[in-house]
Parts: sequence; C-alpha cells; structure tokens
Amino acid sequence: MRIDQTWYRTIWPSDDGTAVEIIDQTRLPHVFEVCRLTNVDEAADALCTMKVRGAPLIGATAAYGVCLAMSRDPSDESLARTEEVLAATRPTAVNLRWALREMRSELGPIPKPERASAAWARAARICDEDVEICRRIGEHGLSLIRGVREHKGGGTVHVLTHCNAGWLATVDWGTALAPIYMAHDSGVPIHVWVDETRPRNQGASLTAFELGAHGVPHTLIVDNAGGHLMQKGLVDLCIVGTDRTAANGDVANKIGTYLKALAAHDNGVPFYVALPSTTIDWRTMDGIREIPIEERSPGEVTRVWGRAGDGAVVEVDVAPEGCRAANPAFDVTPARLVTGLITERGVCNASWVGLSGQFPVEAGLEKKS
Amino acid sequence: MRIDQTWYRTIWPSDDGTAVEIIDQTRLPHVFEVCRLTNVDEAADALCTMKVRGAPLIGATAAYGVCLAMSRDPSDESLARTEEVLAATRPTAVNLRWALREMRSELGPIPKPERASAAWARAARICDEDVEICRRIGEHGLSLIRGVREHKGGGTVHVLTHCNAGWLATVDWGTALAPIYMAHDSGVPIHVWVDETRPRNQGASLTAFELGAHGVPHTLIVDNAGGHLMQKGLVDLCIVGTDRTAANGDVANKIGTYLKALAAHDNGVPFYVALPSTTIDWRTMDGIREIPIEERSPGEVTRVWGRAGDGAVVEVDVAPEGCRAANPAFDVTPARLVTGLITERGVCNASWVGLSGQFPVEAGLEKKS
Repeated sequence: MRIDQTWYRTIWPSDDGTAVEIIDQTRLPHVFEVCRLTNVDEAADALCTMKVRGAPLIGATAAYGVCLAMSRDPSDESLARTEEVLAATRPTAVNLRWALREMRSELGPIPKPERASAAWARAARICDEDVEICRRIGEHGLSLIRGVREHKGGGTVHVLTHCNAGWLATVDWGTALAPIYMAHDSGVPIHVWVDETRPRNQGASLTAFELGAHGVPHTLIVDNAGGHLMQKGLVDLCIVGTDRTAANGDVANKIGTYLKALAAHDNGVPFYVALPSTTIDWRTMDGIREIPIEERSPGEVTRVWGRAGDGAVVEVDVAPEGCRAANPAFDVTPARLVTGLITERGVCNASWVGLSGQFPVEAGLEKKS
Repeated sequence: MRIDQTWYRTIWPSDDGTAVEIIDQTRLPHVFEVCRLTNVDEAADALCTMKVRGAPLIGATAAYGVCLAMSRDPSDESLARTEEVLAATRPTAVNLRWALREMRSELGPIPKPERASAAWARAARICDEDVEICRRIGEHGLSLIRGVREHKGGGTVHVLTHCNAGWLATVDWGTALAPIYMAHDSGVPIHVWVDETRPRNQGASLTAFELGAHGVPHTLIVDNAGGHLMQKGLVDLCIVGTDRTAANGDVANKIGTYLKALAAHDNGVPFYVALPSTTIDWRTMDGIREIPIEERSPGEVTRVWGRAGDGAVVEVDVAPEGCRAANPAFDVTPARLVTGLITERGVCNASWVGLSGQFPVEAGLEKKS
C-alpha cells in the first residue's frame, strides 16, 4: 500500500538476491526504517521481537527464513534445524507452521543444489498468493460494508478494529483492513475506530499509521472505549483479523478481541473476522481449550515506548518499580460471538459447517482434484 | 492507609488552618508529593487535572474548596460562585454535587462571620463520615470475599479490579479495595488482578502503588487481558467502584468497566460494585441514557507519561503525529450485569428495589425520622 506516494510490500528479496528486506515495525509510527535480514537467526529474531508480526506476514517471513538458510547450506540437517528455529519463535499463529510445511514439501523431494532457487521461488509465490488472497478478502468484505451502509440508510460506515490486521500484518492489503481500503478507494464513506491495543500499541503505532498514510479517516481510542461507543450506536460493524481460527470457528486474536466481541454481541453490532484460509487450524476443534496462548514479557506491560519531546524514541516505566505483571498476548473469541468469517472464498458462518463448506479439501471432506 | 509505615489520608487541613493538603495523584507512583491548595481556584484545578480524583475524594475536595472560599469571603455571592466553579470541574461524579449541596445547606442559613469555621467543621465531618462509610463497605465486602473463598473450597481468592477505587479515591480505606485490605489484614489469602486502566493508567499508577505500599499481592495486566483471565478460570470475583450509580442500578464507572462486566457475566464470575450511598443519583432512573459522560482531552490517549531511564518523569507520543483521538472517560454498566452493590449498609441487588430497600429515606419512600 501507499506511504507518501510510494507503494510498498512488507517483505521483499533484496536487489542482490542475498537477503530479505522488511519494514521494521517496532519503530513505527515514529521512524520508517527498512531492515535487512541476511540469515535465519536474523529472521527468527525479527519474528521474536516483532519487527514483523501479523499471522500472514509471520508465514511469509518464515518462508524467506528458509530461503536464507538454503542459500548458505541446502542440506537436510540445515532444513530441519531452520524449521525448528523458526517454528519456536511464535506459538499462536498457525501460518508459521503452514509456511514451514509448504517449504518442506517443496524442498524435501528435490536435489540439494536446486533447493536454494526453489526456496526463493516458493517464498515469492507464497507472498504473491497472500496478496491475491487478501485482495479477495477485501472484495468480499467490501460487499459486506456496502450491505451495512444500505441497511443503515446511507452515510458514513463506522468500523471498529482491534490490533493491526492491515497491510503491515500481511504482504499487502491486509485482512481486516482490506475491505476498508477497498471501500475508501471506491468512494464508500468510511471511518475507522482504532483500538490502541495495549500492551504493544499496534493500533496506535501501525493501524493509525497505515490508515493515515493511505488517507482513510480514523480515530484512535483506548481499548476500554469500544463497549461505550457500541452502546451509544457509534459503531456499525467490527472487523478484526486472527492469528489462528479453530475448525469450530473459535478465533484466536490479539488480547482484548474477546471483550469487543462481547460488546458487539450485547449491542447487536455485527462482528466479523477476516482471514486467509492458511490461518485455519483444521486439527483444532475447540479453540478455547486447545489454542496455545503466548505469554510475553511483563516489561511490555510495565513499560511504554514513544517519542519524547526532543524527538527521541524512548521507553518509560508506567508502573511502580518492581511491579509484577502478566502478559497473555492473545485471547480466544468463541464462535457463538462471531457473526461471520470473511475468507478468500467469501463470507461463511463461524463453524465447522461454514468453514468446511468453503474449504472441503482442506477440511478433509473432498480429495484434491 | 500505609505508605512506608506512615499512615495517610488523601486530604487534610494544613497545620496552620489556612490551606488544604493533598497527595498529588498525577505524579504517583514515581513521585510522592504533598501539594497545598490555598484557594478555590487551586482546588478546582486539582479536580480538573485529577491531582485528586475518585468520586468520594472529589466530594471531599469540593467541600474543602468551599472552606477555602469561606475563609476569604463568606458572602452569599462568594458561596454561589464557589459552588459554580467547583461543580463545573467534573460532570460525571455525583458526589461533587452532593458535597456542594451539603455545604450549602450547612452554611446558607447561618450568619456570615460563622460560615468559615462551620465550613471547616462540616468538611472535616464529611471526611470522617467517608472513612466510616468505607470501613463499613470493607466489612460487608469482606463477608462476601469469605463466602467466595468458602464456595471455591479455600485457597487464594483472585479479585479483578478496574481503575482505582482504593483509599486514594476516597479519604481512606477505599470502596472496591476496602474489602481487599480487610481480607488481607485479617489473613484471608488474596491476590488482585489490576487493570492498568488506560488512558490515565490509574490502575498501574495508583492501585498497584497502594496495594504494593500495603503489601497486598497483585499483578498488573493490560485492560485487554481480563476477559481471557476469566475464561481461563483465573478470576474468582470482580469488584469495582463507581462515579455515579443510577437509581435503577446502572453503574457509571471508569471507561472499560462495562467490558469487564460483560466478560464476568459470560464466564459466571460475580461482579460487584462498591459505593457509598453518596454516589447514588436518586433522580436518574436510566443510567445508560441519562448519565453524562465526560469527554476528556485526546492528548490523554495519544500520549503516555512515565519514568524514563534517567529517572525523569516524561510524556511520550504513542500515536502518529496529528492522529485524531476520542477520549470518553466513563461508561455505564447496565444493572443486569451487576451481581450486587456493596454499600455502607450491606449488599443489595443492583435495582431500584435493592437500593431503595437499603436507603428508604434517600429514595423518598420514608421521611427522615
């Protein structure tokens, strides 16, 4: 998408073909910096420290991590070690494991000298596929937004979103924000309530940044405010992304999503989740019980970083010295609170029936033709 | 309560009787500073800038604001102007208006030369009454906590609270935290999940501070985390305070309270609201429609303040430059989500029947005997 009239993706191979370049998302919105990953450890570090984040982009980065390893050492041991290192970086997003499986099934059967170039080609395809998938999610979501607008008799459509499921979370377009970009670009009046999304403030630092860069009207709110806005009739629709969707329609997403889904349900506001099918965990039939929730550093809760008066980006302590903190990074929204899932194939119920109807092959109901 | 083995109240007349002293709550937890208010404008400023906050303490500060004015000028015009200035500082807390009414009915009928000393005496009594009311709320809440502990078969009771309804929000003891202090002091094992409470972080800066100073085990969490913790069975009970309780049991409290009440309801976790009867707005029968919600500065959302590495307390921008933000300071939790109200007279249903049963005189059902 656009930043200052330049079009970007979030990840791309370097011109010399020896490295991968990413936008360092830990420095946004204050500093826009492209960062070079030259080996698998740097790729793993970018994932752990969330220089790149968002389920689809995590998958793409893992794929390129395998490329970096194969360029140096295309052996079976190297492939296995690379998978292990990358898989350990983030436990909740299922796209990570999906991308690693894709790379293995592409590279495993072929001779070692061919692995590097095959890896780069497959990673590029994963990225292109992700862009196309997100574009389709955007189109299906756009119909939905048009429907909501018609239902309310015209005017601006107010959408609430949590965390960042924009183009910065994917290779391009985004998942939850793709419909919003398409609505805006096609002249549908739209306004986005952006949850700041503590503790890492992805809403304030990424969603507000990318919507602003693309010119989409938006208002930042604290995570506490969404329920009140819905109660007052100021939200027409919620759209969020997901890090893993269970086969029963339960949705793991950034911590706090569940609270917004409860408020939407209590106030009759439609609550949609946008996802590429690569985010579906077909082996999990009970998201609440089975999806592992990443517990991150307490320092993310007790400290906040931002731009000080002198322009320097600094971290400040917001809690008393030595204060204990807990930091679960995700929660699971039960399917019963989800109005529908927006995938690359359309909108379906948040249920096994809905998902398997759209993806019978992946669900194991039909054989790949 | 205790800070470093010294006992404090949140507000007291200065030794020389010409001023009021408060703990500046905008500088906690990083700096503990006592601040002197010498006239009504300084009292109004302390209320607006939230050097003092919390419904009962807002009332006490307003009462002392009247004292400061009466010491300088005990005329009717001065009394009327003082009321006007103080009433305009915070729109949601009903205690402010209650305290001003109390002062007027005390001072209005008496000769001007006697007003100053009568004002100081009445304000002191308002404070003493508040302490006694909170102590009783603590006792009633303690029985409740003991009951919850018995019901779960013993062990530590995990209480979630939002914002600060501790002793810093009152003159002493607190409302929501009074039962917690009493449980801790009487040996009931207790642990508190402390919502940080963006945008002003009263949880991180005040609740964590006062629980820590008194030695009560607690864990800081972001406002997004409570739903997940309840879903995982890690919360036995929620207790929050309130800035205004409608006569039908709807409860206005710090923004985000409604979301926690929804999560408690969805997970069968009891959700209690602790309040002195001075917080009840007997004239409002529909809290959601009628209670005015204060809209505060967007800068509270786009900026966060804390202690930098060099120890200086600084403010940092967390949003992109020029980002628009909305900042509703309170929300209203519908009575149907409230398990019960804890007042100085006991625990009752969040309803007109419950409240008027406990306070028949105030509700207009019985005459003052």
